[in-house]
Amino acid sequence: MEDKRPENVGILAMEVYFPSSYVDQNKLEDFDGVSKGKYTKGLGQEEMGFCHDNEDINSLCLTVVARLMEKNHVDYKDIGRLEVGTETIIDKSKSVKSVLMQLFDESGNFDVEGVDTSNACYGGTSALFNAVAWVESSAWDGRYALVVCGDIAVYASGNARCTGGAGSIAMLIGPSAPLVIEPGLRASYMRHAYDFYKPDLTSEYPVVDGKLSVQSYITALDNCYQNYCRKASKKIKTKSSTFNLSNIDYMLFHSPYCKLVQKSVARIVLNDYVHQEHQHYSKDDQTQLKDLCQFKDASLDNSIFNKPLETAFVKASECLFERKTKPSLLLARQVGNMYTPSLYSCLASLLISTSLNELTGKRIGLFSYGSGLAASMFSLRVTEHAGLPEVVNPAKVNDLPTFTLHSLVSGLLEIRVKLKQRTQLEPERFTAILECREKTHTLANYSPQSTNEHIFPGTYHLTHVDEKFRRTYERKPLPHPDMNGNSSQNGAENFTHTNGF
Amino acid sequence: MEDKRPENVGILAMEVYFPSSYVDQNKLEDFDGVSKGKYTKGLGQEEMGFCHDNEDINSLCLTVVARLMEKNHVDYKDIGRLEVGTETIIDKSKSVKSVLMQLFDESGNFDVEGVDTSNACYGGTSALFNAVAWVESSAWDGRYALVVCGDIAVYASGNARCTGGAGSIAMLIGPSAPLVIEPGLRASYMRHAYDFYKPDLTSEYPVVDGKLSVQSYITALDNCYQNYCRKASKKIKTKSSTFNLSNIDYMLFHSPYCKLVQKSVARIVLNDYVHQEHQHYSKDDQTQLKDLCQFKDASLDNSIFNKPLETAFVKASECLFERKTKPSLLLARQVGNMYTPSLYSCLASLLISTSLNELTGKRIGLFSYGSGLAASMFSLRVTEHAGLPEVVNPAKVNDLPTFTLHSLVSGLLEIRVKLKQRTQLEPERFTAILECREKTHTLANYSPQSTNEHIFPGTYHLTHVDEKFRRTYERKPLPHPDMNGNSSQNGAENFTHTNGF
Repeated sequence: MEDKRPENVGILAMEVYFPSSYVDQNKLEDFDGVSKGKYTKGLGQEEMGFCHDNEDINSLCLTVVARLMEKNHVDYKDIGRLEVGTETIIDKSKSVKSVLMQLFDESGNFDVEGVDTSNACYGGTSALFNAVAWVESSAWDGRYALVVCGDIAVYASGNARCTGGAGSIAMLIGPSAPLVIEPGLRASYMRHAYDFYKPDLTSEYPVVDGKLSVQSYITALDNCYQNYCRKASKKIKTKSSTFNLSNIDYMLFHSPYCKLVQKSVARIVLNDYVHQEHQHYSKDDQTQLKDLCQFKDASLDNSIFNKPLETAFVKASECLFERKTKPSLLLARQVGNMYTPSLYSCLASLLISTSLNELTGKRIGLFSYGSGLAASMFSLRVTEHAGLPEVVNPAKVNDLPTFTLHSLVSGLLEIRVKLKQRTQLEPERFTAILECREKTHTLANYSPQSTNEHIFPGTYHLTHVDEKFRRTYERKPLPHPDMNGNSSQNGAENFTHTNGF
Repeated sequence: MEDKRPENVGILAMEVYFPSSYVDQNKLEDFDGVSKGKYTKGLGQEEMGFCHDNEDINSLCLTVVARLMEKNHVDYKDIGRLEVGTETIIDKSKSVKSVLMQLFDESGNFDVEGVDTSNACYGGTSALFNAVAWVESSAWDGRYALVVCGDIAVYASGNARCTGGAGSIAMLIGPSAPLVIEPGLRASYMRHAYDFYKPDLTSEYPVVDGKLSVQSYITALDNCYQNYCRKASKKIKTKSSTFNLSNIDYMLFHSPYCKLVQKSVARIVLNDYVHQEHQHYSKDDQTQLKDLCQFKDASLDNSIFNKPLETAFVKASECLFERKTKPSLLLARQVGNMYTPSLYSCLASLLISTSLNELTGKRIGLFSYGSGLAASMFSLRVTEHAGLPEVVNPAKVNDLPTFTLHSLVSGLLEIRVKLKQRTQLEPERFTAILECREKTHTLANYSPQSTNEHIFPGTYHLTHVDEKFRRTYERKPLPHPDMNGNSSQNGAENFTHTNGF
């Protein structure tokens, strides 16, 4: 037993948190005085979530962990590893993970490995890989791992501001998972680049070289995809002898803005086209690509900024995009770029936009990108037997929590409800709030100006930063549970006390 | 094969870098006008290394990785994972790991997992655990992992300044290692504490609550040690039915200053004493403890600041300290606190202070502590067969590098030479250099004022920070190798070209 790895390690449960305030991208176009459609059609964004000055990276992660544990009835004693991926650094030394350990106080369980992991939007993926490896390693002691990603993405006023967002996602990791990380199938691309980085430690805003950023993302995508396909061709039996997009049922991407994701699907089709792999696509999908013959001698080199080629491939791959990727962009479009949680928000969006029967047995490809740069492509397999509630082993129902695809997806269904429950604020108010964050986010001896009026029940919020920069938080109470102890549709949850510290 | 883990995963090779400038702690006592012996006897420190303004966390890590690869003749293509543990944050988003990827450019290998991991001085241990788990996981592809820890530890002028230091350590990780991480034997203690943290992002200096810091360290030690012994009692056959200090041949600690380490040995003896485990010590060791009968009813509660008890246990455990721990404090005493590399500097110091025959087959206990807080106790086993060069498989000698205890320790022997080659600077000069760092460490459009006159050959140094905060580095050339292509005793190395970017 000791030298054998547990099997089917992956995601057992997920929880998503996004801010309760948002701004409309249409109104932001007017407010910013840019050409109509620049943010909405040009970038593919509809709405953008943002935080007031009473939320920070700690409060975001406290909220999502507390909700995941409550909703899935997991005991804090049963967690053996917890790590956080973030680039929202408010302390150069203390980890967000150490702040989250407050949630474990009551359980008395402090034997919980893992700290913070960081490289721009890639930190969450790094944490996920580490957690999976821990479960597969000799250090595993049978307990669950928790992976948390969270970020507040804000930009200086100007062109990039509309590509902000915020949120946090927690994932419970263990064996026999409904979403299995496919073993030995992973391709990374890591290089030195100053495309997007945060060297001004006094500011929440990054320094961005927009053109280099797109170039880095696409180059990483090309490299990861080709390397992933090479590895997958050896590992996975396919109808053709090689692996290509036809072997991936859903393809998810880190999404700084939705239009880049659509271009990424086109780019993958270009990769297949250049390598003659599109010949293995289904008849229908091949038919869509018939107008590409003018590019039969296309190469990947120097094609990143070739507009006619890009346009042609985006058009030709539209059906593939609609089927394999678009359902994953719900949160990316309505909340914006969450940074580390972005890719996992795409996973959550896909899961609540697709029926369980459709999902079961499928392969989900994921491309994670963090500027600087760090990128990986990997895949999830939706396990055959975890799709339907009736296959739950009845002997275990009253024992430990059982994690099926059904339970995983059920836990995410309130996303659509909560998106509608958010408060829309005008661009003027949004701008004022960002100005307030700008002036106050590094202050000691400070109490947030915002009340907790707008935030969702169950949300942790910052109450004070003392003269030594020590931060305290409180939690907005959840409504009382209904008679059955179940969550109600309006976001009320079965958790009754305020956990304040 | 696929679901079976590789065996004896651990440290194959190590490389240590520390600054070439240091200040004498005796002179610092005079300069600071404190009572004689406060830093030297009171804290147990002799000298302190420090960096000029032309070294930063990137340059420290570039140097140690380049040297490890050269000295051990490892090809950059053979690295599949690289991660960095640090709390010296100079960018909130871009990882140090991404900077290190420049070293891989020539090899064309960019499929290298891992980013940065951070929680005060614990980041390196987190990176080590992640690397070992990766090798043991299904994601492993047969290549080596590289773990890098580095930090520049500086404090505001005053009481704490003398507890600074700087350095970096790289470790090559893989199976069949001379230093095996004992599988399934690990106890962690993670909690929320504001004992030492860095909330002022504009400053290199931490905020420190000295008393809480000692209390947190000792509480973490108590918890990790007891939990480790509980786990070890189940896993390891010992003469007595339980596990205690007599089952650990060498005991290493994170060392903010050497006196705390000596007190930690005493604290472990107190733990054993309270639980009656000292009865399993050797006759000689038991005899040393005979004066402790006045504390026969001692408990761990409220004893952290009990001075008479502490003094008695420090005295009674002196022989144990001399034998099991003191040989590990060479670098901690002469370079100071390196933060993340501190614990691994203790390992390197032990290895070059003890004969290979003595080391072989022994268990080395390690206690890693990072404020905030994150702590773990784990152990290394020096493998029976890797101790002597004659057991190297001759068939492999001309093939891949072979890593034995002999080769590992040989690579570290220049530490003593380099400690002597350093330049001693007067406290006035040291203070001026820290003031210069204070004013310049966050600047854009800046070139360091220091020349590379003092730094060791083979060291990377910062040459410029441009107007967009982008940093460039150059490497001080190594002397030409001697006729045999070997490193010479004076620090000359078999690497001839200047690698500048």
